[in-house]
Amino acid sequence: MTEPLQDIGRLLISCPDRPGIVAAISQFLLSQGGNIIHSDQHATEQVGGTFFMRVEFQLPHLIDRGEELERAFHAVADRFDMQWYMAYASRIKRLAVFVSKEEHALYELLWRCKMGDLPAEISMIISNHPNVETTVASWGIPFHYIPVEPDQKQEAEARQLQLMEGKIDAVVFARYMQIVTPKFVSRYPNRIINIHHSFLPAFVGAEPYTRAYERGVKIIGATAHYVTADLDGGPIIEQDVQRVNHRPNVKELKRVGQYVERVVLARAVTWHVEDRILVHGNKTVVFY
Amino acid sequence: MTEPLQDIGRLLISCPDRPGIVAAISQFLLSQGGNIIHSDQHATEQVGGTFFMRVEFQLPHLIDRGEELERAFHAVADRFDMQWYMAYASRIKRLAVFVSKEEHALYELLWRCKMGDLPAEISMIISNHPNVETTVASWGIPFHYIPVEPDQKQEAEARQLQLMEGKIDAVVFARYMQIVTPKFVSRYPNRIINIHHSFLPAFVGAEPYTRAYERGVKIIGATAHYVTADLDGGPIIEQDVQRVNHRPNVKELKRVGQYVERVVLARAVTWHVEDRILVHGNKTVVFY
Amino acid sequence: MTEPLQDIGRLLISCPDRPGIVAAISQFLLSQGGNIIHSDQHATEQVGGTFFMRVEFQLPHLIDRGEELERAFHAVADRFDMQWYMAYASRIKRLAVFVSKEEHALYELLWRCKMGDLPAEISMIISNHPNVETTVASWGIPFHYIPVEPDQKQEAEARQLQLMEGKIDAVVFARYMQIVTPKFVSRYPNRIINIHHSFLPAFVGAEPYTRAYERGVKIIGATAHYVTADLDGGPIIEQDVQRVNHRPNVKELKRVGQYVERVVLARAVTWHVEDRILVHGNKTVVFY
Amino acid sequence: MTEPLQDIGRLLISCPDRPGIVAAISQFLLSQGGNIIHSDQHATEQVGGTFFMRVEFQLPHLIDRGEELERAFHAVADRFDMQWYMAYASRIKRLAVFVSKEEHALYELLWRCKMGDLPAEISMIISNHPNVETTVASWGIPFHYIPVEPDQKQEAEARQLQLMEGKIDAVVFARYMQIVTPKFVSRYPNRIINIHHSFLPAFVGAEPYTRAYERGVKIIGATAHYVTADLDGGPIIEQDVQRVNHRPNVKELKRVGQYVERVVLARAVTWHVEDRILVHGNKTVVFY
Repeated sequence: MTEPLQDIGRLLISCPDRPGIVAAISQFLLSQGGNIIHSDQHATEQVGGTFFMRVEFQLPHLIDRGEELERAFHAVADRFDMQWYMAYASRIKRLAVFVSKEEHALYELLWRCKMGDLPAEISMIISNHPNVETTVASWGIPFHYIPVEPDQKQEAEARQLQLMEGKIDAVVFARYMQIVTPKFVSRYPNRIINIHHSFLPAFVGAEPYTRAYERGVKIIGATAHYVTADLDGGPIIEQDVQRVNHRPNVKELKRVGQYVERVVLARAVTWHVEDRILVHGNKTVVFY
Repeated sequence: MTEPLQDIGRLLISCPDRPGIVAAISQFLLSQGGNIIHSDQHATEQVGGTFFMRVEFQLPHLIDRGEELERAFHAVADRFDMQWYMAYASRIKRLAVFVSKEEHALYELLWRCKMGDLPAEISMIISNHPNVETTVASWGIPFHYIPVEPDQKQEAEARQLQLMEGKIDAVVFARYMQIVTPKFVSRYPNRIINIHHSFLPAFVGAEPYTRAYERGVKIIGATAHYVTADLDGGPIIEQDVQRVNHRPNVKELKRVGQYVERVVLARAVTWHVEDRILVHGNKTVVFY
Repeated sequence: MTEPLQDIGRLLISCPDRPGIVAAISQFLLSQGGNIIHSDQHATEQVGGTFFMRVEFQLPHLIDRGEELERAFHAVADRFDMQWYMAYASRIKRLAVFVSKEEHALYELLWRCKMGDLPAEISMIISNHPNVETTVASWGIPFHYIPVEPDQKQEAEARQLQLMEGKIDAVVFARYMQIVTPKFVSRYPNRIINIHHSFLPAFVGAEPYTRAYERGVKIIGATAHYVTADLDGGPIIEQDVQRVNHRPNVKELKRVGQYVERVVLARAVTWHVEDRILVHGNKTVVFY
Repeated sequence: MTEPLQDIGRLLISCPDRPGIVAAISQFLLSQGGNIIHSDQHATEQVGGTFFMRVEFQLPHLIDRGEELERAFHAVADRFDMQWYMAYASRIKRLAVFVSKEEHALYELLWRCKMGDLPAEISMIISNHPNVETTVASWGIPFHYIPVEPDQKQEAEARQLQLMEGKIDAVVFARYMQIVTPKFVSRYPNRIINIHHSFLPAFVGAEPYTRAYERGVKIIGATAHYVTADLDGGPIIEQDVQRVNHRPNVKELKRVGQYVERVVLARAVTWHVEDRILVHGNKTVVFY
């Protein structure tokens, strides 16, 4: 049996680990009439570390009762010094997808949304190149061409931020080849996902396929991570790789890599919109 | 921080799913002074299915208090119609490993035990061929050569069962090429692990590598499963595969496959001795 | 340096193995002014088996000289009892893609063609359901809706064959859920590629994901194969798999599997159009 | 049919690419009475790059005729400016395996030699720690404990080199945690294989698992490479990876990684002793 989406909630918490947390949370949900569907947890140490938990639950009329529920939960949260948030499965997250010239990663997201495999809404596509427009035209998604000139970066970002203001829940850099400012990053903390075209921390920076070719690696990879002020240094969400041999040249490596990139990014975005990721320092806990 | 092994317990349960199970279990452990280290759960449906749970907890003086704890848990278990058992991490499981002529799977288990990666004790090795004896001699493990003649199968099994009686907790068929009787199987229900040298259900039965070669498959695999009266049909614990191309002949396929077999079996045995597997009908729920 | 496509040829041969084959072929190409770019070979035995070879070569003005070259090669071919064909890289192969309700495999092919990763032309799309039409409309590819009623299968096939006659080089069943007749198959021997949604020979036949779920497998797969009169029994071209655990239900298994299917089919079709596949009995030799 | 090992030879060449190389080599072998069993080749460019080739051939009485054959080949080699060598399958390569405290990689090599999967002879084991001795005692292989004190490194190396002089064909660092001098390296150019416990170039240097943990990577790996004067910078032979999630601590990452290390090293050593590797600048061409 499957419950209606509007009755499904997700509670994500992190707090110092000590006895009684699971009991308190499960007791709370039970007392409110909720039923736990999935529950995952992680502690960084057997004793004395940080505790992470994701509970997916079903609760009749959740959408109407959410505010009251969150208010009631404060007492539990305070007792254990929790950082927490409640998410509602029926509130589909709205994405702004940024892209430069290469369309493969964007396309994978569009396709997965259409298929129902990525439960999100792509609300707008922003590019510093005009060429993607023809591709996305048939999808009926607002497209904004915002060139980014070196001396007018701030103006471009201002326009981007204005377009997104109040309209989106997360930002996806689907091969967007511009470095954004700390101001931009701080507007969407842990809500900007980038796909880097290497197996980080190998080949940080530009031209990773060229450098992978030069180093003669036997495996290439891609990394999806949250964007922070530290370029290519944010918390890693997902990585995957593909075996290669001595045959591919740089162009062929890139082609192979693009199929890794699109899959890795799609997984990371899916986990984000399903509220499966908790950030802890410069790492992620991903419950999937 | 890591707790002493004698204070670590594992509670495994399955029962009809309904609200309140997690709350009841976590409340019970809390009331007894226990602290949850890991907890995993699975429900076959969002509502109304079967619920499975594995809780690893730390509880001071668990070994001394185990009997009392189990008695106290009966009240919770009865309330939810639970099937359950409590395992104690400090009671290392004792294995009888059966093997025929090929030693690779046995060897992987011996080596992982020695390395401390497989928390089990190989208490005896039983073979229907004498050749393994020289290999295991230096390991100091009792070796029993019990030939299995077609007309004396029952006598052979009787001797095997007698050797194991009261001395072992699980049986591993590490490429043991004999079919055992239902009587043997019923003595160790869900406690006999076999490695089958194919990606079941493909190539059920004999000579799977020859048949894989003839069929021209591009991937070969191995399957670890619990042994039931249904040959090659028991609950699958773990599977893995290896890509092959058109080049290998049957002998080479076998060689490639042996490395898959040894890894798949080692994983399955490790999960078994760490009490990570719940059997549900003809399937397994594996919490790892 | 990269040579112009119209100067690139591929010679594929198979014959009884004996000394001198490679010398004869390489000498022939050299004498004609050709330069070997890639060469792959395979022998089923060290001595006395069947020999397979694929040579990719560059030869100035190949397109104009092809007929003459093929005529000249007959002498070499006859000497070694070769089965062989010459392919021209600049003659892009034309595909008819058949599809039923599920679009994911079709879409991957369309996208790879557009990206330049699949060097083929999708010349027509044929479906027994009308729903794909809206998806493919924006791609500008002729779409033919040909319903297949049980009692009018022959008429439907006649229409399909007529549409394709002289216009296509290969047929792709991109999740086409109809069984075609031997007559249809014999029209395009070793030129019809099907994607089966299981790791063949496991789960031959209908509803493989349901049966994989029931059997509790830990890995699901997909198989691309040439279609023969033997349902799901033709020569396997490519297979791949994805690890799953106890969590997915049938619908979720299917979703996971679709991403394997689309990749496996795309690889198989790419290898076919690049003349990388030789069929040998019920197996394939794939040089990639 | 399989030919006797003493009749199997391998010819490895590299040279500037130009038409006629394959024809010349295959014609040469044919004229000498040889039969090509396998042949692989690679060119770095379609035209004008470097050409690499490995030919495995059968030639009656090869062992007796080797010297004469090599002399005769000089004419071909000179014509094409080839770098080349001839290897004889029946001359099993002798290895010196260096190890420090961790035994897993050494053990995999010992086991594969015993199984016949690694066609080499481990002629001696050298360690800077005494603890491995008990493990290898039962294998009957000479063990040399040579402590390496910071101020007596040269003396230690001198002793190592002396022990190996004339007795071994290649050196394997199976988790040998000492940096050797350029002098040592130059004695065995492209014949010293090291296993590095990370996915190079990520985590060059010391403590890669600790650093992988701190960076929160989702995949860990291992790299086998030839040792050059540039620490961790030599030509990569093989790499492989294992997926991890947020759960493992440093010690557990290390344990997971050890199983990757042992497989990657075993593959690299096997390819080396089967003469499958050609070094090209700081990269390898591996024909397998």
